Amino acid sequence: MSIVLSHTGYGKSEIRLVKVTRRRHGHDLRDLTVGVKLEGDFDAAYVDADNTGLLTTDTMRNAVYALAKERPIDPIESFGRRLVDHFLGAGAGVTRARVDISEHPWARLEVGGRPHEHAFQRAGGGNRVATVAGDGGGVDGIQIEAGIDDLLVLKTTGSGWEGFLRDRFTALPETSDRILATIITARWSYNGPEIEFTAAWRAVRQTILEAFCDHYSPSVQFTLHHMGKAVLDARPEVERISFSLPNKHHLLYDLERFGLENKNEIFQATDEPYGLIEGTVERSPA
Amino acid sequence: MSIVLSHTGYGKSEIRLVKVTRRRHGHDLRDLTVGVKLEGDFDAAYVDADNTGLLTTDTMRNAVYALAKERPIDPIESFGRRLVDHFLGAGAGVTRARVDISEHPWARLEVGGRPHEHAFQRAGGGNRVATVAGDGGGVDGIQIEAGIDDLLVLKTTGSGWEGFLRDRFTALPETSDRILATIITARWSYNGPEIEFTAAWRAVRQTILEAFCDHYSPSVQFTLHHMGKAVLDARPEVERISFSLPNKHHLLYDLERFGLENKNEIFQATDEPYGLIEGTVERSPA
Amino acid sequence: MSIVLSHTGYGKSEIRLVKVTRRRHGHDLRDLTVGVKLEGDFDAAYVDADNTGLLTTDTMRNAVYALAKERPIDPIESFGRRLVDHFLGAGAGVTRARVDISEHPWARLEVGGRPHEHAFQRAGGGNRVATVAGDGGGVDGIQIEAGIDDLLVLKTTGSGWEGFLRDRFTALPETSDRILATIITARWSYNGPEIEFTAAWRAVRQTILEAFCDHYSPSVQFTLHHMGKAVLDARPEVERISFSLPNKHHLLYDLERFGLENKNEIFQATDEPYGLIEGTVERSPA
Amino acid sequence: MSIVLSHTGYGKSEIRLVKVTRRRHGHDLRDLTVGVKLEGDFDAAYVDADNTGLLTTDTMRNAVYALAKERPIDPIESFGRRLVDHFLGAGAGVTRARVDISEHPWARLEVGGRPHEHAFQRAGGGNRVATVAGDGGGVDGIQIEAGIDDLLVLKTTGSGWEGFLRDRFTALPETSDRILATIITARWSYNGPEIEFTAAWRAVRQTILEAFCDHYSPSVQFTLHHMGKAVLDARPEVERISFSLPNKHHLLYDLERFGLENKNEIFQATDEPYGLIEGTVERSPA
Repeated sequence: MSIVLSHTGYGKSEIRLVKVTRRRHGHDLRDLTVGVKLEGDFDAAYVDADNTGLLTTDTMRNAVYALAKERPIDPIESFGRRLVDHFLGAGAGVTRARVDISEHPWARLEVGGRPHEHAFQRAGGGNRVATVAGDGGGVDGIQIEAGIDDLLVLKTTGSGWEGFLRDRFTALPETSDRILATIITARWSYNGPEIEFTAAWRAVRQTILEAFCDHYSPSVQFTLHHMGKAVLDARPEVERISFSLPNKHHLLYDLERFGLENKNEIFQATDEPYGLIEGTVERSPA
Repeated sequence: MSIVLSHTGYGKSEIRLVKVTRRRHGHDLRDLTVGVKLEGDFDAAYVDADNTGLLTTDTMRNAVYALAKERPIDPIESFGRRLVDHFLGAGAGVTRARVDISEHPWARLEVGGRPHEHAFQRAGGGNRVATVAGDGGGVDGIQIEAGIDDLLVLKTTGSGWEGFLRDRFTALPETSDRILATIITARWSYNGPEIEFTAAWRAVRQTILEAFCDHYSPSVQFTLHHMGKAVLDARPEVERISFSLPNKHHLLYDLERFGLENKNEIFQATDEPYGLIEGTVERSPA
Repeated sequence: MSIVLSHTGYGKSEIRLVKVTRRRHGHDLRDLTVGVKLEGDFDAAYVDADNTGLLTTDTMRNAVYALAKERPIDPIESFGRRLVDHFLGAGAGVTRARVDISEHPWARLEVGGRPHEHAFQRAGGGNRVATVAGDGGGVDGIQIEAGIDDLLVLKTTGSGWEGFLRDRFTALPETSDRILATIITARWSYNGPEIEFTAAWRAVRQTILEAFCDHYSPSVQFTLHHMGKAVLDARPEVERISFSLPNKHHLLYDLERFGLENKNEIFQATDEPYGLIEGTVERSPA
Repeated sequence: MSIVLSHTGYGKSEIRLVKVTRRRHGHDLRDLTVGVKLEGDFDAAYVDADNTGLLTTDTMRNAVYALAKERPIDPIESFGRRLVDHFLGAGAGVTRARVDISEHPWARLEVGGRPHEHAFQRAGGGNRVATVAGDGGGVDGIQIEAGIDDLLVLKTTGSGWEGFLRDRFTALPETSDRILATIITARWSYNGPEIEFTAAWRAVRQTILEAFCDHYSPSVQFTLHHMGKAVLDARPEVERISFSLPNKHHLLYDLERFGLENKNEIFQATDEPYGLIEGTVERSPA
């Protein structure tokens, strides 16, 4: 029996990059958080204190800012691809590079009903995210995942929870009318070579939101599959979509003890504990 | 010399209240965080272990939910007023009640270009807040403060920082073109008896945003006064407005060392440290 | 009626300073977060875009690091005093300077049962804080406040809540045995000219903790006064002490519905809502 | 091509459980955050709105509290095992159950130099964590992982960063003396059937800390492997250990521009961006 190093990886996290592009009719603002991770054979550094094969993470940071200067960073999937290509060349030991990008939404301020040229406010609607990973094998070796983070949505009705399994520890009453609230995290992959990333992202996001609205939800589980299927039905370029949906419980507050009827009107929003529902919907050859 | 209790107060914080009102053409959703604080003579409890004059904070929570059921909670200033009136009657020792309300913004989801009846997403644009305090002296004893929290805004140009005081420890270069970003916290009071709170709040918020946009900012300090003055000029019902404006520094990233010119294009957003600029603008009889 | 600027102040927040002092028998580590705030007549900047009287907040940051180099930063009350003296000289308009310091606790790692010379781990027990403010009037114009933040304590018994006021919305049962948990925030001032700040701080902290332990708590309110009185009784140099004590509710979990008895054994810890109890205990000439 | 559900799982997160055990010489306090996740065939619920195979996550919460009542929860690995066994029986579709437990450290308060019977303060030193997963295949189907979270450590010297790869974007100077600070996250597995979990956990933790201290660190990568090898050398029952080590950068503050020498004395602690170093050390048959 010997002792071995079986997995290594390192990188830079939380690189906060803002790019301003001055166009004729106004400024374009992009606000990203970028993470870089390299995997490969770094045993000389880990085991023998030989750093000659290690790109320092400060250099990764500089490269992110410099490459953001040299080329457009929009769409983020393409910027991620350029970063991956760059980092795959960053030392002999690197076998895989991965870049995570999260884009924070801004909306133009309106003055006199018209959008301002260079003033913005933070918008709602969640972050656009992309993960690009590559192993140096060219186009075939590149994986691109798009997604949404932190998209908080809520329905005041059209949701219930009935007919579930009961055992010794079940106390929850059934209901056919409750608040359904979740913070959507979604990740999806594309199947084609030529994707219009921004148009596709917007369409997937809108399809998710419309599917969230368009049905009675008998469970978060059902709504998850319903949203995933809606995306695959509407967008042939999407191969697979995964969701992570916390159930942000809104508890009907007990007002009967004070002589008041509470017909799905007054709720206590809670942060913890919360249910967490996950699932993947994808195309199958079958 | 003796030892005395010189100040007492207690209450309930972070009461999370959601109210759904079912109207003919759709549901109305209100999402509040409420805090209650009572001040007065509670010495018997603090010193002598006599709790007979203390309303338990759990009762405060119940009262917030119950009063939200019995009456509208919109506008939050009026709901705060009702809560203050209620709590002023909560025990002989109470001499002052204070209620802090923060309303979290939601926007209707759009399906097929039309707003949905009961589905929402968390919106941007900051929380609407109100603080109401009263001492039992009727209308004259009530103070109402309205405000905004967590309104993140940014200008990509139209801001500089020049001509400042220099001493032994000054190293910052002057600039006539920088990113200006801040998270607006504002609090204001009204001078009239009959305020349309929601219309006034919207108008103040829009005036602040337009003033943020409409000038070259030589300093956060100047912009603070400029926004405050704009509000008082435009809204005669506002008596006084205070701002707390963190300077969310965006540092021009040094790319020259890599042979790249960076003409206000690539920035590093930073969280700490940050400048913090405060000030109050108000009407004066003079 | 005219519109006036009635209050101004600005400064730098979240300056993260670590100082290492190499002594014969090991390194000394100090880890501070510092905030600076200046008040005064800055109207020229706020109103007229004249920055000549403004020290830039970046200079404040540099000064904090530079003064930390030139002199000891221990105790933090004395370091705060030096910073206040420095900033009172920072421009003609400054009438008051305030410095807030929070010191984050580290403990030496132990190797073979002995403390290591230069390796540390983050310790529990809360942050030591100090606020120093001055108006340029020499010793008489200086206010020093010491304190503790973020000191989480809990008693598994020896606490109850009975005999409180009941009204229409009261539902909480009385109990003579509950968990009492709070995160102690305390601030106190000294009355003498020559205080051994570190020894005094340690003694006050230990007195608070022992007083937390040594009695049956009929309410958080009583425990607050009890701890404050214990400090004033034990430490003649303390003039006044204030506490802010969130009641971190631990709810007895209802297991009877599952046929299990729960005699103060199984609790659900909750974050929100929480009670918040405040009070000041001080010496009086009477 | 058809559209299929390819992965499902759901559970309850952030269950906050506190257990008090009254022993002859004092109370024992355990403070846990528990997460439960079930995987299996839940297609009927996701696709067909048939909830009959779903245990509601509220029942999971109840079960965690109830099982904590019926049996000891110490060590957390054994409590996790009991929970997994329980949840594997929770419905026909369940093929795998996973329980994550994080134990928050408390230390007894000392009064008069002696530990108190029932009063505690939050301690430093990180959370003890355990993950237990099972697929219903008996002992062979159970995986137990122990670990540490949130253990913040720092060396003021004995660390450098030299000889690394340089490219076009490398600007970082080399150093043979810097602050090394990280927040240790570690996970390890055992190879034997009869582990004394608590004794083993304490020994692994102490070995990690001593290894952090006992060498000159030429890189976080080297220190990672060094700590992992030390654990495997010292503890034959440990089969594999993984680390995730953020490099909490402490930047030497530039004081030379103010005429001051800064010989590794004054540092700016930073939160972002940060390096992130990962790796696994394990036994190999070779």
